[in-house]
Amino acid sequence: MFKVNENYLKLPGSYLFSTIGKKVNAYAQENLDKKIIRLGIGDVTQPLAPVVIEALHKAVDEMGHAETFHGYAPDLGYEFLRKAIVEHDYQARGCKIALDEVFISDGAKSDSGNIGDIFALENKIAVCDPVYPVYVDTNAMAGRTGEYLEETQKWSNVIYMPCTAETNFAPELPSEEPDLIYLCFPNNPTGSTITKKELQKWVDYALKVGAVIIYDAAYEAYITEEEVPHSIYECEGAAACAIEIRSFSKNAGFTGTRLGFTVIPKELKCKGVSLNSLWARRQGTKFNGAPYIVQRAGEAVYSEEGRKQTKEQIAYYMRNAKVICEGLVSAGYTVSGGVNAPYIWLKTPKGMSSWEFFDYLLEQANVVGTPGAGFGPSGEGYFRLTAFGSYENTLEAMERIKRL
Amino acid sequence: MFKVNENYLKLPGSYLFSTIGKKVNAYAQENLDKKIIRLGIGDVTQPLAPVVIEALHKAVDEMGHAETFHGYAPDLGYEFLRKAIVEHDYQARGCKIALDEVFISDGAKSDSGNIGDIFALENKIAVCDPVYPVYVDTNAMAGRTGEYLEETQKWSNVIYMPCTAETNFAPELPSEEPDLIYLCFPNNPTGSTITKKELQKWVDYALKVGAVIIYDAAYEAYITEEEVPHSIYECEGAAACAIEIRSFSKNAGFTGTRLGFTVIPKELKCKGVSLNSLWARRQGTKFNGAPYIVQRAGEAVYSEEGRKQTKEQIAYYMRNAKVICEGLVSAGYTVSGGVNAPYIWLKTPKGMSSWEFFDYLLEQANVVGTPGAGFGPSGEGYFRLTAFGSYENTLEAMERIKRL
Repeated sequence: MFKVNENYLKLPGSYLFSTIGKKVNAYAQENLDKKIIRLGIGDVTQPLAPVVIEALHKAVDEMGHAETFHGYAPDLGYEFLRKAIVEHDYQARGCKIALDEVFISDGAKSDSGNIGDIFALENKIAVCDPVYPVYVDTNAMAGRTGEYLEETQKWSNVIYMPCTAETNFAPELPSEEPDLIYLCFPNNPTGSTITKKELQKWVDYALKVGAVIIYDAAYEAYITEEEVPHSIYECEGAAACAIEIRSFSKNAGFTGTRLGFTVIPKELKCKGVSLNSLWARRQGTKFNGAPYIVQRAGEAVYSEEGRKQTKEQIAYYMRNAKVICEGLVSAGYTVSGGVNAPYIWLKTPKGMSSWEFFDYLLEQANVVGTPGAGFGPSGEGYFRLTAFGSYENTLEAMERIKRL
Repeated sequence: MFKVNENYLKLPGSYLFSTIGKKVNAYAQENLDKKIIRLGIGDVTQPLAPVVIEALHKAVDEMGHAETFHGYAPDLGYEFLRKAIVEHDYQARGCKIALDEVFISDGAKSDSGNIGDIFALENKIAVCDPVYPVYVDTNAMAGRTGEYLEETQKWSNVIYMPCTAETNFAPELPSEEPDLIYLCFPNNPTGSTITKKELQKWVDYALKVGAVIIYDAAYEAYITEEEVPHSIYECEGAAACAIEIRSFSKNAGFTGTRLGFTVIPKELKCKGVSLNSLWARRQGTKFNGAPYIVQRAGEAVYSEEGRKQTKEQIAYYMRNAKVICEGLVSAGYTVSGGVNAPYIWLKTPKGMSSWEFFDYLLEQANVVGTPGAGFGPSGEGYFRLTAFGSYENTLEAMERIKRL
């Protein structure tokens, strides 16, 4: 008789955003007259940039003719896209990343979920708390996190690195030695960042204890401050200890278009075994690449026009971030994030729990946010709003919140 | 110190088609004057159907305007696509499959590789031999297959079901009881099929021993014979023991466009735990859906025009299959497949090994095929040619082979 993966049965509740989706849909169906403003899930609302649309149309036309049709993509992704990435995201910042160290994928969520495949089950992970739930959930599914303890809302075999007001929402080096360290900067959900000098400490630490840093830089395009690094490879020695995951979802609005990439430097090794070759094998065996037309769209993001147009999109969202930050502060909330990130992290008022505030905001202001507790136990008492709505909706949401 | 997944180190060589790609590229670079005809990897060559191109353009335009822009897709995929699938692939054949039993993905390779995630590691798998390498390789990566034995070219903990000339290239019920049974019909690589009555025996067997059948029907569109089932759900009781994986790669030329789906009926359970809910959790946590524009393209495949146009594509490839079968027979080869499948399976001449014949064909005829041994030990002494080339190239390849 076959058996299921029992690790799945240990997972508490369902995936955070599925739960929110269901709650909001239920409320919406019972309140058809209410205009709900969604600042919850980190989904973009602005259309794809004109230059991206143009590239898509052109690539679609190519797919319609035998001479220019494209079948299976090369294992690592098309070279035209990897070249653009290497040049603009790495060489331009002084990072030496080679073409065959970049793996094109269908997005950062898939990559950050799948990357665990190439590591042994006995590795111990360290995560920021709160953090994007995919890191912990996918490790739990693999059986790497021990047991889930309802009382503490923590897994028994995970090193949690609290990111609270006391630590300025940044993690501190853990006292227990981890094997895999998940870092996400600019952070989801807190919107916090650390400076290059601070990140260098993590790289030095990883090199010292023999850990791999899985660095999720999906929000790097939102960085506005000079001293905040866009890539972990800006730090010395990072190529020997860090994997970097990137996305087109937030820098170019590709949430529904699906494109991302992962960088694994060839010098990142364990006892002579290169992680780059393991990931190449994993992707070559379990994945068949992102669509040709989408890879062409990704290439267009790096064109001169593309960089200009996507910069405008980001400025649009960051104007929303400013509206949210200022609106919340004027309404008396304690707020962080929103400067180098599209996320605003607020303390819930009157000692409400995160989910109490979620219901309160949904029912009283018809505004959807994300309960901080959904990102980890230290997120309890906090709440995330995103800057990805339309400007008009963001303004209206703030007016409603101010009126509460 | 972190550790890698040592199961990866047990894998022999690299992924079959990566190896072939490297060999062919090396030969091509040293022989720039030679025109190589690729009938190796199962990649299509015909352009996307006009109605698909039209749907893609329309969806791209939608992505360019805020009012019609699409961000993250629903967890299971867009309902418009799932509806078309349920109606045309299942209801039309008398199979009761519900909308929430269909999961849209980026392709059958990902799904057949990832499906192992929801099963316990101690499940024992049974595979046809020879077979599409992804089933065994991904189970090996997970640690489910024991040790690889060079002498036999088999894994110690896998039940191999030989599909040879003696069994008419179909598997027989195994003597040892498996937990997971991978079946692929029409078969890749042999091109063989079994009748509905024969498939019913597998369903009955799985129900009896408590096994799950993972049924890969990626090539169902190539079926020409009446008694061959297109879906395993045409068999009685299959909804309680079978997962079906489908692809748009071969029925509509989506190898470079990326779209597929997996069906998991809700009644498929292990001790009350529904595999449907586990897969929903897996996909919700580790995947973010296929691109909106690609899901619209998939929808177009099911339109009246779409069905007509893709049928023409399939007829085009099946004409190639006929050319290959007849050409090989007239050249004295022993051949099977090619009737309900785009694959032709031939016995290598003069006792050559599969890889010897690969080199021979590449060097003497500049034709690329796939060595049967790459699909499993019982594939040794056989060779796969695909019907996915252009008609002109297929004719020329046959002329060259006849001249050898």
